[in-house]
Amino acid sequence: MGRVTALRPVLRVRAERRSHRPDTLAVEEPMEIRVGGRALTVTMRTPGDDFDLAAGFLVAEGVVRAAEDIAGIRYCAGATADGANTYNVVDVALAPGVPLPETSLERNFYTTSSCGLCGKAGLEAVRTTAPWDLTADDLRVSCRTLALLPERLRAAQRVFDKTGGLHAAGLFAPDGELLCLREDVGRHNAVDKVIGHALRAGRLPLRGTILMVSGRASFELVQKAVMAGIPLLAAVSAPSSLAVDLAREQGLTLVGFLRGSSMNVYTGAERLPPHRGPAPSAVS
Amino acid sequence: MGRVTALRPVLRVRAERRSHRPDTLAVEEPMEIRVGGRALTVTMRTPGDDFDLAAGFLVAEGVVRAAEDIAGIRYCAGATADGANTYNVVDVALAPGVPLPETSLERNFYTTSSCGLCGKAGLEAVRTTAPWDLTADDLRVSCRTLALLPERLRAAQRVFDKTGGLHAAGLFAPDGELLCLREDVGRHNAVDKVIGHALRAGRLPLRGTILMVSGRASFELVQKAVMAGIPLLAAVSAPSSLAVDLAREQGLTLVGFLRGSSMNVYTGAERLPPHRGPAPSAVS
Repeated sequence: MGRVTALRPVLRVRAERRSHRPDTLAVEEPMEIRVGGRALTVTMRTPGDDFDLAAGFLVAEGVVRAAEDIAGIRYCAGATADGANTYNVVDVALAPGVPLPETSLERNFYTTSSCGLCGKAGLEAVRTTAPWDLTADDLRVSCRTLALLPERLRAAQRVFDKTGGLHAAGLFAPDGELLCLREDVGRHNAVDKVIGHALRAGRLPLRGTILMVSGRASFELVQKAVMAGIPLLAAVSAPSSLAVDLAREQGLTLVGFLRGSSMNVYTGAERLPPHRGPAPSAVS
Repeated sequence: MGRVTALRPVLRVRAERRSHRPDTLAVEEPMEIRVGGRALTVTMRTPGDDFDLAAGFLVAEGVVRAAEDIAGIRYCAGATADGANTYNVVDVALAPGVPLPETSLERNFYTTSSCGLCGKAGLEAVRTTAPWDLTADDLRVSCRTLALLPERLRAAQRVFDKTGGLHAAGLFAPDGELLCLREDVGRHNAVDKVIGHALRAGRLPLRGTILMVSGRASFELVQKAVMAGIPLLAAVSAPSSLAVDLAREQGLTLVGFLRGSSMNVYTGAERLPPHRGPAPSAVS
């Protein structure tokens, strides 16, 4: 994966000391996702697992929900005048009978004309397209296990230590086993790559799994977890108000500020039962 | 600004201790930017300074470069069936003679048909639209001053301490004085708000200023700085490869990993002359 990192010269300043050296950076390149030859979006991503990225994006958009919904994925050659392949344009062919996606700007927020553009419209858009019922997922995880995940995610990050510039998304089993890790300059891309990989392996919905992300939890990330059938999303940092609202409505367990043995549980706390056994008196 | 934060109940887990309390979260709401009544984009943002956000976005897109290019900005009422105003749709009226923007998906990466979709096309798109020559900007800043900025940015963040969920962008003078601070769930929105505020005050190009952002430096953030005429972009975390390439091509000074008295200077180091005076021997 030579395209994942790149060297650039850098002047290091440490107090009054200056030194020149090469620095390893995360590569950022645009990628266009096409469906049936029609452009759907352009995302700035770190190259690698591009087909998973395209597939995962289409899961979040409600276009596909099973491996069989995709007839094929390929890089488009001939995207340049001289016919060279930049490996930055990916075309997804849908299986017969799978409807083409809406390509308008407003696809996520204008599904209901009565509401106008607001957070509620976003919640309603997910409500009308979510294919799985998360409330039926009986996942139970101990907070002790959850507390192990940030360090496991960090330890597994291959590129981060070199560049410091990549977000990570990790899919974990309830016992804390890492099932899949992806890194990208965009957190949403890392999540799409994890979900697209699972879709293509025939593993959706991802019942009984935990998705852990570096950084914050936005509406968009909760939406992606919901559309993949993941019942628990944990983030190192804060969620937004709309992320919490969507998680609550969809029955997703949302954990933020997961650091050491402390965390904030915003929704779905029933999936994190208190520790039983010889425990301190403060357990409630 | 009651819409900037919102309270949600949270279960706090600290080792085996559990407590229920309200938590202050950053608000995230969609906002649509229209130009002359036509939808250009929908961004997930924290409400507040919405007109600045719209104006700044249009600067980065190369649509406007001076306050006079904008005839007016307003919230669209009647965006819902009952005519209520969600304050989430902003329409910008351009002054007579200012061309309407290209609204296709590919506007940033397909300006040159010879290149196809790749990082080089992104560089070229900025090259053909950038209205200012950054190489002519003779800004000089001492590394000692630069080292003060992260703490000043952090200290000025009004909302961050409450929510932990907001990115910040700050515009500074060469002596380290904070000129403008904006916070948002999206780092790109915080930058747009800073730049839009300056545009509307008739202050573009922002010669001789420093833009400091929390988190990473992406291609998009360098593009925004370039289009606003800002000669120095500093980030707390890592830049991407394409961010460095664009900064180099445009003559922008790009500083990453700005923490304490240490930093990495990726491009334009001539704007950060070594400290003169009684200095350690290692100064080069």
